[in-house]
Amino acid sequence: MKTHDQLMDIYHKVRRLTEDLCRTLTAEDSLLQAMPDVSPPKWHLAHTSWFFERFFLRTGPGQRPAFDPAYDHLFNSYYESAGSFHPRAQRGLLSRPGLDAIFDYRHWVDAQVLEVWQDYGDAQHGELRASEILEIGLNHEQQHQELLLTDIKYNFFAQVLQPSLRPERILPPDTPVPLLWDPLPEGVHTIGYQGKGFAFDNEKPAHRAYINPVALANRLSTNAEYRRFIQDGGYQRAELWLSEGWQWIRTEKLEHPLYWKRDARDAWSQFTLHGWENLRDHEPVCHLSYFEADAFARWQGARLPSESEWEVRAQREPLSGHFLDFESLHPLSAREGESQIFGDVWEWTSSSYAPYPAYRPLNGTLGEYNGKFMVNQYVLRGGSCATPGHHIRPSYRNFFPTTARWQFAGVRLAKDLP
Amino acid sequence: MKTHDQLMDIYHKVRRLTEDLCRTLTAEDSLLQAMPDVSPPKWHLAHTSWFFERFFLRTGPGQRPAFDPAYDHLFNSYYESAGSFHPRAQRGLLSRPGLDAIFDYRHWVDAQVLEVWQDYGDAQHGELRASEILEIGLNHEQQHQELLLTDIKYNFFAQVLQPSLRPERILPPDTPVPLLWDPLPEGVHTIGYQGKGFAFDNEKPAHRAYINPVALANRLSTNAEYRRFIQDGGYQRAELWLSEGWQWIRTEKLEHPLYWKRDARDAWSQFTLHGWENLRDHEPVCHLSYFEADAFARWQGARLPSESEWEVRAQREPLSGHFLDFESLHPLSAREGESQIFGDVWEWTSSSYAPYPAYRPLNGTLGEYNGKFMVNQYVLRGGSCATPGHHIRPSYRNFFPTTARWQFAGVRLAKDLP
Amino acid sequence: MKTHDQLMDIYHKVRRLTEDLCRTLTAEDSLLQAMPDVSPPKWHLAHTSWFFERFFLRTGPGQRPAFDPAYDHLFNSYYESAGSFHPRAQRGLLSRPGLDAIFDYRHWVDAQVLEVWQDYGDAQHGELRASEILEIGLNHEQQHQELLLTDIKYNFFAQVLQPSLRPERILPPDTPVPLLWDPLPEGVHTIGYQGKGFAFDNEKPAHRAYINPVALANRLSTNAEYRRFIQDGGYQRAELWLSEGWQWIRTEKLEHPLYWKRDARDAWSQFTLHGWENLRDHEPVCHLSYFEADAFARWQGARLPSESEWEVRAQREPLSGHFLDFESLHPLSAREGESQIFGDVWEWTSSSYAPYPAYRPLNGTLGEYNGKFMVNQYVLRGGSCATPGHHIRPSYRNFFPTTARWQFAGVRLAKDLP
Amino acid sequence: MKTHDQLMDIYHKVRRLTEDLCRTLTAEDSLLQAMPDVSPPKWHLAHTSWFFERFFLRTGPGQRPAFDPAYDHLFNSYYESAGSFHPRAQRGLLSRPGLDAIFDYRHWVDAQVLEVWQDYGDAQHGELRASEILEIGLNHEQQHQELLLTDIKYNFFAQVLQPSLRPERILPPDTPVPLLWDPLPEGVHTIGYQGKGFAFDNEKPAHRAYINPVALANRLSTNAEYRRFIQDGGYQRAELWLSEGWQWIRTEKLEHPLYWKRDARDAWSQFTLHGWENLRDHEPVCHLSYFEADAFARWQGARLPSESEWEVRAQREPLSGHFLDFESLHPLSAREGESQIFGDVWEWTSSSYAPYPAYRPLNGTLGEYNGKFMVNQYVLRGGSCATPGHHIRPSYRNFFPTTARWQFAGVRLAKDLP
Repeated sequence: MKTHDQLMDIYHKVRRLTEDLCRTLTAEDSLLQAMPDVSPPKWHLAHTSWFFERFFLRTGPGQRPAFDPAYDHLFNSYYESAGSFHPRAQRGLLSRPGLDAIFDYRHWVDAQVLEVWQDYGDAQHGELRASEILEIGLNHEQQHQELLLTDIKYNFFAQVLQPSLRPERILPPDTPVPLLWDPLPEGVHTIGYQGKGFAFDNEKPAHRAYINPVALANRLSTNAEYRRFIQDGGYQRAELWLSEGWQWIRTEKLEHPLYWKRDARDAWSQFTLHGWENLRDHEPVCHLSYFEADAFARWQGARLPSESEWEVRAQREPLSGHFLDFESLHPLSAREGESQIFGDVWEWTSSSYAPYPAYRPLNGTLGEYNGKFMVNQYVLRGGSCATPGHHIRPSYRNFFPTTARWQFAGVRLAKDLP
Repeated sequence: MKTHDQLMDIYHKVRRLTEDLCRTLTAEDSLLQAMPDVSPPKWHLAHTSWFFERFFLRTGPGQRPAFDPAYDHLFNSYYESAGSFHPRAQRGLLSRPGLDAIFDYRHWVDAQVLEVWQDYGDAQHGELRASEILEIGLNHEQQHQELLLTDIKYNFFAQVLQPSLRPERILPPDTPVPLLWDPLPEGVHTIGYQGKGFAFDNEKPAHRAYINPVALANRLSTNAEYRRFIQDGGYQRAELWLSEGWQWIRTEKLEHPLYWKRDARDAWSQFTLHGWENLRDHEPVCHLSYFEADAFARWQGARLPSESEWEVRAQREPLSGHFLDFESLHPLSAREGESQIFGDVWEWTSSSYAPYPAYRPLNGTLGEYNGKFMVNQYVLRGGSCATPGHHIRPSYRNFFPTTARWQFAGVRLAKDLP
Repeated sequence: MKTHDQLMDIYHKVRRLTEDLCRTLTAEDSLLQAMPDVSPPKWHLAHTSWFFERFFLRTGPGQRPAFDPAYDHLFNSYYESAGSFHPRAQRGLLSRPGLDAIFDYRHWVDAQVLEVWQDYGDAQHGELRASEILEIGLNHEQQHQELLLTDIKYNFFAQVLQPSLRPERILPPDTPVPLLWDPLPEGVHTIGYQGKGFAFDNEKPAHRAYINPVALANRLSTNAEYRRFIQDGGYQRAELWLSEGWQWIRTEKLEHPLYWKRDARDAWSQFTLHGWENLRDHEPVCHLSYFEADAFARWQGARLPSESEWEVRAQREPLSGHFLDFESLHPLSAREGESQIFGDVWEWTSSSYAPYPAYRPLNGTLGEYNGKFMVNQYVLRGGSCATPGHHIRPSYRNFFPTTARWQFAGVRLAKDLP
Repeated sequence: MKTHDQLMDIYHKVRRLTEDLCRTLTAEDSLLQAMPDVSPPKWHLAHTSWFFERFFLRTGPGQRPAFDPAYDHLFNSYYESAGSFHPRAQRGLLSRPGLDAIFDYRHWVDAQVLEVWQDYGDAQHGELRASEILEIGLNHEQQHQELLLTDIKYNFFAQVLQPSLRPERILPPDTPVPLLWDPLPEGVHTIGYQGKGFAFDNEKPAHRAYINPVALANRLSTNAEYRRFIQDGGYQRAELWLSEGWQWIRTEKLEHPLYWKRDARDAWSQFTLHGWENLRDHEPVCHLSYFEADAFARWQGARLPSESEWEVRAQREPLSGHFLDFESLHPLSAREGESQIFGDVWEWTSSSYAPYPAYRPLNGTLGEYNGKFMVNQYVLRGGSCATPGHHIRPSYRNFFPTTARWQFAGVRLAKDLP
């Protein structure tokens, strides 16, 4: 349990980081929504503040009148039990409130949160305590920090002028690491969060699962490996794909990962948050859909790991890696001995996102946070170069539909053992 | 292993049954395709024959020239490695070849199959033996027997005049059976097909799974129970639904199961293959989507079982129930002591359709039979009143997308134990 | 005015011809609806009968009970004031009533019409007299005779096996006729129907229009001329097209008229009601959309005629040509001196379909026949090889949207004079 | 012909007005595109400048290098012969170049235009003289001034907070003027532009047309009249509508004009560029689609005038009215004796937009300005409260598709005379 001051300290760090990520955006950039799945940066800025207003300031002692009654409708994302909400696909139509007004809103929320915390401390706010709600709110904001970056990347790529969020980066070394297979111990394992700190409801309860004989790759799959898949006709061979994935790449005319492009002399480059770069061989391949990750694994004679398999492997790894804090904003090539289990890219698993046995969502409106999305999505594990480092755990479950490509998502291979 | 004569005997029974199911259809009925998911009856008649022509007559000794070279394109369903195929959604545009020509095709195929079998017996046909291909073909045809019935039902319902396939039925008794909970033994169990007879590749290999504490309902959920869900605002309460399901029922304006209708005095009736009937309280509720099954279970304070849980329960049950052979063509009310595990309705499980650990699809074109569909679909177990009785096993896996409603699909509840 | 017996004589001839056109169709053919714009042949057979039942048998003396009360819904095409109607795009889902039942319906209607006519003669039926309604009904049925043929052609083409309605035809000579320009007299002309016989309300009232200096082509444009348009990049040059047409051909990837195909050696053939034929140079080009007709005319340095210009030209022409009665079921090459004003192909005009000054639709439900379609469609004139000969007049106005291609529609060029 | 200085004087007035109209917009407002038909304000600002760069600065003596080579793609609207262009529906995704950069672009263009004009005067620029291109460019910019206002109105209405462009207005009097019918002289009239000043190619050549007996309303139709249409079931009665219009209002669930809303006590208000106002009885009804204008006229026992009829009526009217210069930004109630022929609202005519006899588009790329849109649109006449006063003429033709509602478009009734 954190002390009162520690919590406020973290609160301010998290809140400030969100604003820092947006510091080079113009007001017009802040309104962009280049596809329904992404949200305008200013909407992220407002929604994460509304989250504290709605779930903290309105639920406990020292309640505040609404900053603006329209904001409940404007900045509620999807909480049906919190009232109506603006259609997701139309967030890009909200020129008002302006970016300045939204910063004012953030600062108003921050001041109120501080006051309420100072005045009432860890009081009961409905079914949760103040500190519990604040921790959810901060973890929620960290999720939106990652989305801010992936959404800005998509919005900038979708434009004709394709601006960069950050200046050209100094390229780290790019040396190969051989692919090796690391067997897991067969048998019954405990999966899910067992600690005492914060974890989302979807990571609980801890429960048992049987791991059949399997080995996992010692590192992430790389650009060079994926390029060989393309050269080998990967996008033209139906037998490598799930049927639905095959229809999808035909319809969408996909022939390479999002953000890649090939020039007339067959040289590849990729769009990054630092602008266009030559494709580097040993960096983790990234911005793959589930369908691409799955087809690539099949082409390798391997498969994606299940989320249990991944978690058993991750349980013996220290919690470090190339996260947002590392500031590369792009996955990095493995160095000898680096497993890349955490950070760099989210790793697609073969597991459909589903409740654990005996799963119970949070009570009340926050019960809508995770549980209602547990269908037709697949679990990703381990965090990425856009994930804040303190946000991740071995039991952490991210999830996206099979066609999502704009996240920093890649592949770790798995192989059944005889 | 069946004897030669037994196999031909089964062959003729299965093939004849398919034709018997269509005996009251007009030529125009045989062309209907009221939505892309259903196929015209005459297409089923032809495709199941093409399956034998393509995978048996063309692969081993005594090969025959094609009955009609156009049929490979017309009656291939989805085998990419077998060449091009007519778009699924346009099967209803094929007035030619006519129904008579398709019966001729069936009889030609039957004659050739018999000859090749008599001449060459259980010869090698590529990577499989003759008997293996014939067994796959017959099991394949049995799957289409069920689809014929569910597709005809949908086609007839979609019309203004809503004809019946069969005359009015004599209604069996409809008495209640109390809902009880039947715990499963916690621990490691073996899942998947372990026998020596025929099973599809998706049921293998047998492998271990851990069953956490859970109990399953002693019988299927009923119409009366589902009607209470409706009366309790089931279709109007977002908190009961998966988010994607909620969007879907809003968009489609769904308020009850497919084939139900309510009259001005609130009395319900349902469309069956015998025409419209008053809704009967204790019959299993049927023609639910996964989303409806899941929401109903949540409303009951329960959940859907996983496919492992279901299979562990089914392993101790005799393989009998109300199958197609029972000729009711509609699920029946449970009698005291009847578990309804097999037959009546397919039971939605919470499990996304996925490969078992160490799964290997069949080699060659038949490898496309199951494996490529293992994404974004959910597993159903146990067979229905439209499933041929000899077709089913405890390990048998059926699968449909979350919005499919035209199958005989219902609910068995499960409950986590403390 | 026709005598009583003459009218019944015509009635029987028209009704019999409709059935004759369908005599080689199978029951399955009769259900085909390969796109929403076409109707299943059996729907045409029923709808034209319903027209007499609804507007003749139900409106005057000797009224009959409905043949089947469901038919009002099933076979009403679009008369809002006559009650509900089955959605147009779903006519192909009606396997019931079967084709046999529909023939029974036709014969029942015929018997009743005859009886009512014999019993009550030219009585008043609402606001119209019996003979007036019968004439509308017969002209209506003649329109559906043409649609039957164009719809069957489309339905057969859309199939894999592409059957022919009629056997291979004996090809008439195909010799060129030079293109000449025929000036119209500038000044005020009377447009619209001025006679005493039957004409549709949309041809009235006769009124004045001013013809500015213009000349019309002496014959229809030909396949050879259109092929040169294609060879000259006609489908790739934006400057030849209306903007909406250009978007449309890009989206639909159109590169030639409907029913044309080019083989590997650049030889063209076209699908006809007699099957595939080599494209013949001097036959009128056919199955063009308005957009194609307009682009082709622009490429020729010409334009389409307005409907007034066309009608002034047609007023001095005898009412003969290659109509349905000629039984070629395909347009024929012009012979020296033949203007092709009537028959062969409908001629697209540049005129949007609009009411004439002082236009009044018929009173009552039949007022919906024409007037409500007078927007976003373009007028075609002159009849085609699928139009019954007695159906056409110089003032006759046909109309279709700019993208309709499945009618026998072609081009006569016009040129402004200085 | 204007003098050199006059032309530059007008140039600067027009260019300044465009910027003035945007002076209260935020940068985020300038990016809004709430539907594909509207363009972001900043795109209008850039495109009108690109027009001068592309058609003036790049075509004659003293040519300038491109301000930015990407702008040809970004700010070309639809000129196929000027190269590629950014998809219209995605203009709202262009956060870059920013609003500031676009103002810089405007000022650069203005400086270059002035220099070229001073250095080379009325030189030949391709097939047109400098003054001709500048006049087209200024008239083009005036059209975009109107679109800026109608697009901003739509963008602001589409938002949750619905901001106003201008402060609340002081309401002028609202008194009724009786509806009277004003006959036109039957016979041959000259239609089209006959003067020596500027006119668009679509207004030429002047030619003859015959006016049949008709009378036009002495004023525009009003809100009170239209409200009676609604109260009389106007949106529920199929017989009042064109068939395509009826489908459209059913599908879109339309029940009143765009920007109207009814409160719980049946009082109507409407959204204006000054914010929400109570609906005023005698103001011209506005923001109607063609379908609504046509249905309303039919309900009145009248019809829409043809564009020839309108023009004959307008030829005897002085060129004054409530234009943009009047600064009401909303149509005004007629005063006794005011015909409202010019200004207030565009008047839908029954005429499909078509080339006049002997029409010739401009040579070169500017030939795409008008001619290629002459299909499936309807002509509107007379200008509106958002049209710059010097922009309009009796022969001026505006045009929109039948479903366009976001323009200031209303109704003047016409009646056939016996």
